This record gives sequence, structure tokens and C-alpha cells, in this order.
Amino acid sequence: MTDTLVETATYTDRHGTRHPLPDAAAEAQVRADDRSHVFHSWSAQALIDPLPVAAGEGSTFWDYQGNSFLDFSSQLVNLNLGHQHPDLVAAIQQQAGRLATIQPSMASDVRGELARRIAEVAPGDLDKVFFTNGGADANEYAVRMARAVTGRRKVLSMYRSYHGGTATAISLTGDPRRWANEPSDGSVAHFLGPYPYRSSFHSDSPEQETERALAHLEQVITLEGANTVAAIILETVVGTNGVLVPPPGYLQGVRALADKYGIVYIADEVMVGFGRVGEWFAVNHFGVVPDLITFAKGVNSGYVPLGGVVISQRIASHFDTVAFMGGLTYSGHPLACAAGVATFEVFERDGILERVRDLGERVVEPRLREIAATHPSVGDVRGLGLFWAIELVRDRETREPLVPFNASGADAAPMAAVAAACKQAGLWPFVHFNRMHVAPPLVITEQELVRGLDIIDEALTVADGFAA
Amino acid sequence: MTDTLVETATYTDRHGTRHPLPDAAAEAQVRADDRSHVFHSWSAQALIDPLPVAAGEGSTFWDYQGNSFLDFSSQLVNLNLGHQHPDLVAAIQQQAGRLATIQPSMASDVRGELARRIAEVAPGDLDKVFFTNGGADANEYAVRMARAVTGRRKVLSMYRSYHGGTATAISLTGDPRRWANEPSDGSVAHFLGPYPYRSSFHSDSPEQETERALAHLEQVITLEGANTVAAIILETVVGTNGVLVPPPGYLQGVRALADKYGIVYIADEVMVGFGRVGEWFAVNHFGVVPDLITFAKGVNSGYVPLGGVVISQRIASHFDTVAFMGGLTYSGHPLACAAGVATFEVFERDGILERVRDLGERVVEPRLREIAATHPSVGDVRGLGLFWAIELVRDRETREPLVPFNASGADAAPMAAVAAACKQAGLWPFVHFNRMHVAPPLVITEQELVRGLDIIDEALTVADGFAA
Repeated sequence: MTDTLVETATYTDRHGTRHPLPDAAAEAQVRADDRSHVFHSWSAQALIDPLPVAAGEGSTFWDYQGNSFLDFSSQLVNLNLGHQHPDLVAAIQQQAGRLATIQPSMASDVRGELARRIAEVAPGDLDKVFFTNGGADANEYAVRMARAVTGRRKVLSMYRSYHGGTATAISLTGDPRRWANEPSDGSVAHFLGPYPYRSSFHSDSPEQETERALAHLEQVITLEGANTVAAIILETVVGTNGVLVPPPGYLQGVRALADKYGIVYIADEVMVGFGRVGEWFAVNHFGVVPDLITFAKGVNSGYVPLGGVVISQRIASHFDTVAFMGGLTYSGHPLACAAGVATFEVFERDGILERVRDLGERVVEPRLREIAATHPSVGDVRGLGLFWAIELVRDRETREPLVPFNASGADAAPMAAVAAACKQAGLWPFVHFNRMHVAPPLVITEQELVRGLDIIDEALTVADGFAA
Repeated sequence: MTDTLVETATYTDRHGTRHPLPDAAAEAQVRADDRSHVFHSWSAQALIDPLPVAAGEGSTFWDYQGNSFLDFSSQLVNLNLGHQHPDLVAAIQQQAGRLATIQPSMASDVRGELARRIAEVAPGDLDKVFFTNGGADANEYAVRMARAVTGRRKVLSMYRSYHGGTATAISLTGDPRRWANEPSDGSVAHFLGPYPYRSSFHSDSPEQETERALAHLEQVITLEGANTVAAIILETVVGTNGVLVPPPGYLQGVRALADKYGIVYIADEVMVGFGRVGEWFAVNHFGVVPDLITFAKGVNSGYVPLGGVVISQRIASHFDTVAFMGGLTYSGHPLACAAGVATFEVFERDGILERVRDLGERVVEPRLREIAATHPSVGDVRGLGLFWAIELVRDRETREPLVPFNASGADAAPMAAVAAACKQAGLWPFVHFNRMHVAPPLVITEQELVRGLDIIDEALTVADGFAA
């Protein structure tokens, strides 16, 4: 480990020159440009202090002071193949040198190849792909397809969900980021999903949670007017809002309700598609076939912005002679698609899906169960593949969250303290509300994974200090 | 010319192997994948026949049959520096090899450098940049900023405009692509812009058009309720809907009305920013300072998806301590930004802005005036820099358009015939409604430009056949 760290405690500047780290002058320049001219997402601009990042490799990135961080967030659950994967880098360099882009109305070899590869691993008869720039517009256009096909307008989506920042996508979102963007167009109704640890349905088993959550969904469909509902959209495993793995039978039940009422079932797999839970698409794990699947991030580890909608034959055929009224200049961007094709090659050659399942079952789950048993602050651990949540509480009996819902500032201090302890020990965590998520690159070594879980174990003593 | 053509009538496959063109087998594979698995923008999927593109260089691209096309559309007015510009390719390859991406909440050297470069050439006190994936989300987030700052919700946008495909962006759009996406959320009202050739205001001079169009805008502001209007958004030069160059004083008048009523002025420069009209931002040509400028495309010639909003200090400072409630995983994508920085270097080194102004004034305008004088089908020519429209009519007296508004199928046949004549002669045109636009890469050689205009001249004899 030490050799690797020393060897890579350098960075390459934009002109290709390698420099040793730390590099205070370079850091100062990056910070000055950023603070003067870059406007950041979801932030009060004067209250943030973005970390200047100098380099990344595999599951590690470096700041300009030479600190290394084991990346347990995968940069917003994005870099499924880690930082600077040589095959993805080579594919981008190759494609840039041959044909960086052409317009969406023409045909491109890599665009077509990626669409075919996606169709091959998509469930059921999903075999066409509409490419977008990211997850938000993928959800926008999936909803648009559902509306066109059904002639209905309303969409049902879950509380505790995130579907993106643009107008339709944020209106679907079931977390506080939606609030400041309301009113929306009034076409979305939110329902409660299964969450066994904090059941909205007073259930006391996963089976009962499934049964009651489905009864609730059907009630909402009925009360909203089944024949007004174009689509139900849900994250196959809820991501940022809790790594909520659906209990057995829930997704089958959603599929059945969608069929019963002629509603389009959209699976948002922006975060969980492409290996995060050990399958190409998370629905494959559950044996369910939605009508549309939206994706982004893991399709090419976000090396080039790319998202899309995988479309069933039934829905695609509606648009054989009726125009689909949506589009974008960068749809099916060749550079982005080339990195997607390389992703397929790496996944297959290196058995990425198999290793995710293996590491999840053999390393992560047992270790997290152990952590849960020893830390009074840990209320629940749950997950699948390399996607897990540790839910922190003040009291395991009452399940009072370690910090309140949507806490910020002083209210959120306990979680900030846990995060700081992780960073201090060289791990970059993903923290949301009262949870820490485990979402490392899928190429993480077993040794790194163990080290990261050890750091979390140690950092949780900080949380324990706030717990009963 | 012939040497170049022969030399480049090859293409490089995804694995780096060069092949001679034509290559029927490769074309068949591209076509099969595309038709089986790629779902295209704004189209009835069974009624299109996308051209498989094998290679591109400068202002030319090749199909798999070895046909070359002089690209007078710049791939949706996107490739301002043409196909495969060596500096942009090198910048992408370099950045891919050092750090393809990091999350938006961290600081990146190239992200900061591009933001600084943009701030340096933006007018007035616009000096912060919120990066997005493209033009649609740039407009979405610009509107969101305006709403947050003003506490108002309504937005005024122009008929005959295009602002993007996502929900807010398409609701702003003033062309038929909006229709199938309605109802929107009811927060947009459309006004009529200046269009001297087909004045909505019965004016008989550009000066009168300006005066009356501004009076109309003020009337709409008043009748919509000035204190309900968050923003006025308009393309600085209307793009796809007609290359409508605002008459003298119009944009100054819009600025004055925005100031008078406390409304945010958003300039959409997705198509006309970054050199298309011979300035970094088209507003610079008109000497007007909007509050927000949205951009995409030309910022890096679309080699990597990128868009953004340039923000005035007044608006940015609102978000110093109040969070901006919008964001996206790929905001400020380092690979995209590296291509943006390279764009600045090329523009400056090669005097791109100066050559655009020179070619526009010295070559394009005189030749188009000549064409207008000799073809009875040409009703109007207008433009700026390397962005021009030739408006075709059945009758120069009545100004009846060569094809009806929003024509398709048989109704659009005369325009299809003109486009086919161009393609037959080796030029790829940009055609919209009854217009042909001239929007070649800004690096086009004078010889290529002359050749392209000659082809258009010849093709217009087809249009003349439909004209009185």
C-alpha cells in the first residue's frame, strides 16, 4: 500500500507535466478560480469550501496536500469502475481521435453498439434505447413516453426518492430538494414505499410490509383515479434516500398493479444500474420486468455525461409512426457511448457483477452485521451488492434518528462529526441525513474494502457518543 | 481538394484500425444496430433512415459509401471548431488520462479555469458559472435562479424560439415542439418578437419594428402583471426558428424594460454563443448586458456534453447564504471543461472571432445578396457572422412561404427537394420550415465556404421551380 501511495502522490497538470504533492501553489490557484467563478449545485455559495482534487486512481483520490482518500462514495455513486480505469480512458482517447461527435439524427457505430449491448442485458422485451445526457433528463423523457402511450398525465412516485433536478424530475422527487421548487405542474402524486425499519404501515415483518405497501399503492391509484395515471416511477433500490431494498414480492406487486390498471412502470436505475447491486439492472435481481428503465452514472462511470431510457417493444412501437416529441443535441453522444461499450467489455472480462455479489455477501454484509452488533448508535444496516446503508440512531429502542429529518447546521453536527472522523482516517464517506452509505467503486480490492469498513467501525464510536 | 478527399476517404474503427471507404459491411452493421436498438429524438421511429457516418474532419464528414458532405449545419449548429479539431481532441485525450471526472461539490482545476475564462469574456459583471450538461438544463436552472431571486414565478418567452426539450425548457419554447408537451405548468406566457420581413406589428422599417415590438412586450408585461414576472428569456439571435437578428435598439429596450419592472433578463446563447456571430457572446455584438446567459454547444463544440449559466454578481450574491436548489452529478464535468479551455486557446491563437466577422461580411453576405437578387424563390436573406438564413417564398410580392408553417410530408416536399439537391452536390444543409440556414463550422476555409454557397445557389433553382 505504502509503495502505491508514494508512487501516486503526484498529479499531472493539464499540460501533461507531473508534479509532486503537496503543491500549495496549485491548490491556491484551483481554490481561487473555484471560489471566484464556479457556482455549485445545491449550495449556499459562501458557506461551502470545496476540496480541490488533484488526482484519482482506482478507489482512491488525492487532494493537493497529498492526502489520499479511499472513496466510499464513488463520487455520488457514479464511478462504478473507479477513478481512471485504463480501459475507459483508452476508449475515450480512441474515440476522441476518430469521431468525437455527430448529431443525433445520424447513425453512429458506437451509439448503435452500446444500444445493442444494453438491449442484450435488459430484462424482457426492453430492446431500444433513447440516450440522454444524464439521469434527470432520462426520467423526464421516460415520463413523456408514458404520457404519450397512455394518453394520461398523472405520475405516481415515492416519498423518499430522488429523480433529478430538472422540472419534471424534481417534481417526481420525494425528498426536500423538491420543496423549494414547488409548485410543480400538479401532475405528480407521492405514495409511501416499503421501509421495514420505519414502516409507515405498522407492519412487523418484511412480508407484511410488502402486503401493506402494495395495498397502500393500490389505494393511492384508486383515489387518484386509475385511468388518470400514466406511470408509476420508483428507484429499484432507493438510493440517496436510504438504500431501501424492496422486501420480497414488492416489485412484483408493483408490476401487477401497473398491469391491472394499464399504467407504465418506470424503474429509475440511475444509481443502481450497471453493477451496483451485482446485476446489470437491479430489476434483474428481483426478477421483474418494468416497461421503461432509466439509467446514467454507472453506464460509463460518468467519465462522459450519459444517461438514457431503455424501452420495451410495446412502448417503442407506439412511436413507430407517431413522432416522439422530445430530443437533445447530445443524444447518443459517440464519445460517451464509446466509454459505455468499454464498460461492457470490462464488466465481462473482469467478472464485475460476480465480484460485486461476492464482496457484498462475503465481506460487506458480515462486517456490517458485526458493526451493528457492537455500536449502540447503529439502528439498522441494509443493502445489496456494494450498496449499503448504516442507519444511525440516538436510541435503538425508540429508533430516534441520530439527527432529525433534513437536518442542517448545528442539528446535523453529530453526522458531520462522524464524517469528519472518516475523512481524518483517510476515507471519503457518503452521508445523508442520519445515514452513512457504503458505495465504493465496484473495482475496489478486498483489502481496501476491509480497510474502509475498519475506518467506519472506528468512526462510529463518535456516533456512539450521541447515542443512549 | 481531390488529394484531401482521397487521402481521407477512409475511416478508423473503434479499435483504431483504418479502413478504406466505401465499406458496405460496416455500414450494414451500423444501420442494423441503429434501426434495431437506437430510439431517435423528435421522430417517428419507423419513418426515418439515419445516415451512418463514418468519419469527419474540419468542415467535412463522410458516410460509409465514401460520399463526403460539406457540413453547413455544423451538426445542429454545434461543432463551431469543426469535426476532429486536433487541439480539442488532444485536450480531451490529455484530460481523460489525468482525471476524467470528480463530483460537483469538489474543486477541479479545469472547471475553475474554464469558469474564469468565461467570466473574462462575459459582459458586465457576469462572473460566475453554473455548469450543466447542455442547453436545456442551462435554461431550466437559469429560470430557477430568476424565480428564487425575484420571488416571482412567471416567465415571458418569445414565439418562434427554441429553448430545449426538458419540461421547463420546452414550456419556454415558442415553436411547434411545445404543443405535444402541453399543458405545461402555466407559468410561461409567449410574446411576439421583432421579425422585420414578416412584421407582427405592421411596421415598415427596422426602427419601427423595434419600437413596436418593445411596446408589445411592455403591453404583455403589463397585462401579465409586471410584479408576477420573474424573467424574460430570449435567444439573442433567434436560431432554429429563423436566424432572426434583432433590429437596432431592440435588446437595449428589453434590458430597459427588465430594469424598469425588476425582471431578470436571460439571454439564451446556446446556439449563438462562442463565436457563431463573431463574438464570444452575441450580446457583446449588441452592447447589451443581460443578467444571465445560457450556453452549450460552441463552448467546446459539443465534443463532450456541456452547458451552463453565466451569472451576474447581483444574482449570484443572492445565493451566498441561501442555497441554490438545483444541481446535477455531471455539473462542471472536468473532461467537458478541458475541451472548453482548449476552445478558448484555439479561438485566441487562431483569431476565430475575427475570421468569423471577416468571412461573414466579406464572403457570405455579398454572395447571399447576389443569390437573393437572382432567385425568385428567395424572399429574404439575413444573418450575422457565420449564421445566416435564406427564406424561401412562392411569391416575392405576397411573401407566401415556399412551404406552410410546420409543414411535413407532401406539404414540405419543395424544401425536401432543395435539401436533396444540396446533398446530391455534396453539401449537408440545415433546413427548417421554409428556410435554409448557413451555419458552417467557424474554421471553414474560404474556398469551402465559396463552394458551399455555389452549391446552394445551384440548388435554389429547384426552389425557383415552385415560385411565381
